Amino acid sequence: MSLAIISPNRDISPWLEIFKKEAPDIPLEIYPDIKHPEEVTTAMVWQHPKGSLQSFPNLKLICSMGAGVDHILGDDTIPEDVSITRIVDPRLTFSMTNYVVMGVLNYHRQIRRYEADKKLRKWDMSNPEIPVKVGVLGVGELGGDVLDKLSYMGIEVYGYGNSPKPDFRHPYYHGSQLEEFLSTSNVLVCLLPLTKNTDGFLNMELFRKCTEGTYLINVARGKHLVEEDLITALDEGLLSGALLDVFRKEPLPEEHPFWAQEGITITPHIASITNPEAAAPQIIENYWNLIKGQSLVNQIDRKKGY
Amino acid sequence: MSLAIISPNRDISPWLEIFKKEAPDIPLEIYPDIKHPEEVTTAMVWQHPKGSLQSFPNLKLICSMGAGVDHILGDDTIPEDVSITRIVDPRLTFSMTNYVVMGVLNYHRQIRRYEADKKLRKWDMSNPEIPVKVGVLGVGELGGDVLDKLSYMGIEVYGYGNSPKPDFRHPYYHGSQLEEFLSTSNVLVCLLPLTKNTDGFLNMELFRKCTEGTYLINVARGKHLVEEDLITALDEGLLSGALLDVFRKEPLPEEHPFWAQEGITITPHIASITNPEAAAPQIIENYWNLIKGQSLVNQIDRKKGY
Repeated sequence: MSLAIISPNRDISPWLEIFKKEAPDIPLEIYPDIKHPEEVTTAMVWQHPKGSLQSFPNLKLICSMGAGVDHILGDDTIPEDVSITRIVDPRLTFSMTNYVVMGVLNYHRQIRRYEADKKLRKWDMSNPEIPVKVGVLGVGELGGDVLDKLSYMGIEVYGYGNSPKPDFRHPYYHGSQLEEFLSTSNVLVCLLPLTKNTDGFLNMELFRKCTEGTYLINVARGKHLVEEDLITALDEGLLSGALLDVFRKEPLPEEHPFWAQEGITITPHIASITNPEAAAPQIIENYWNLIKGQSLVNQIDRKKGY
Repeated sequence: MSLAIISPNRDISPWLEIFKKEAPDIPLEIYPDIKHPEEVTTAMVWQHPKGSLQSFPNLKLICSMGAGVDHILGDDTIPEDVSITRIVDPRLTFSMTNYVVMGVLNYHRQIRRYEADKKLRKWDMSNPEIPVKVGVLGVGELGGDVLDKLSYMGIEVYGYGNSPKPDFRHPYYHGSQLEEFLSTSNVLVCLLPLTKNTDGFLNMELFRKCTEGTYLINVARGKHLVEEDLITALDEGLLSGALLDVFRKEPLPEEHPFWAQEGITITPHIASITNPEAAAPQIIENYWNLIKGQSLVNQIDRKKGY
């Protein structure tokens, strides 16, 4: 039995160091140089080449090296009985929440206005705050934490998700209540999982239902957003601005119109970075859980897609 | 008995509306047009002309129209037996804390770096976070709330004040432990009251004791900072930047060197604005408390100065 690592676009040396120290008895195979594909029972992957998992006839478990699993579910060649797990990392949640709170507060306190005023040596005390109410699309580990932190700071918050959650700890809308949810808030945060249903979720139809001048923060996946619709929505004043950390194509191509768009703040997919020290032990644990026939940690529901 | 309002630099019409509605039976006198100075028992003031309170022989109480009382204590002509109260307003605390948290997170997540990168169409994912530990000078209503909120977000925090507080809910240093306190953190927030002892507190001697590259946030009073020392400290790399909301002279004069200083972010004294709807009822309450001989709300200790 062995564990295959397939992560061609990332430096895996920090991961290997942890495996060496914490689990020297797990035989590792590193893609593309796999010696005994038939031995591989678990694969730990990040943006693996589609179809590359087909060479493992005894694969039982795929562990995402990050919080998202869309890169795995997007590969149709993976047999249905293979289990999939993701990383849940408090440090990852910490980073994501702090990034979102920063985005909300910068809009609320208009930091870009004061930066512009500074260049003009302008002292303008008028209307120092834009009142904000924040709606969060997706209330899992990350969305739930964003709601907790903003709410503790005294900011009114609302959550939205796919399914009903009668006991959820914040005001919550689901399914067909999208329009009602959008009317509650003027800052919209996307933390949805990327599934077939949420691809292109942030589109013109949704922007038309938003409170006029809503500020958009997308920290989930680039594919949630129909990028040309955002430009139209900003031009038409449906939205007042956006903070984007993720894009359909990354790195964001040099010729992309977002770079020149005044109302859009861009960060290079750094809202939250997986930390191997927190993530690797979860994968090691699941490798052994699989062998011992014990239940897996942070397993996702393949039908739901998260 | 009457209440005098002395606030020559501020529009007092929202305050008058609240008095009219909530306390129509309190006789009001509005500076400089005072008809019966001998009737005045309470004065509500913001930046009153020094000496202007001397004309009230029966003055017993001065109510600051904001959180600070330094503008009152700076007037030596006020008899020692006159009581002084300040405003404690959850909305004011909300604004102050959100402003400080914004400042901390913008430094932590380097938003200005990404704004500069955007202009260059540069995608640089390296080192996305500056680890932060936050030290707050002054742990009263405002400083304490900043510590609570940052700590709830998972950020390491330390408080510093004048006197010992054995039961304080966060790690706390006082008095001669300043150097130890400064070495704990790399973001320094000033929320001290302005007194004779704290005028010029943020000076070269203190900056030399800071963790190298400390980021400074001053939201208390302009006089806490020796402004030329900040420029030297930035030039020498003792500090890495500053977010300033208050200045020795406000509005900040057009020729002031801060405007052109790359590492300084400037806001025009808007971190927290007194809200008459929350503040006026506290003054009304104290007006009646004085008459009934009851204890005053949010009275300050004149010896301590806060």
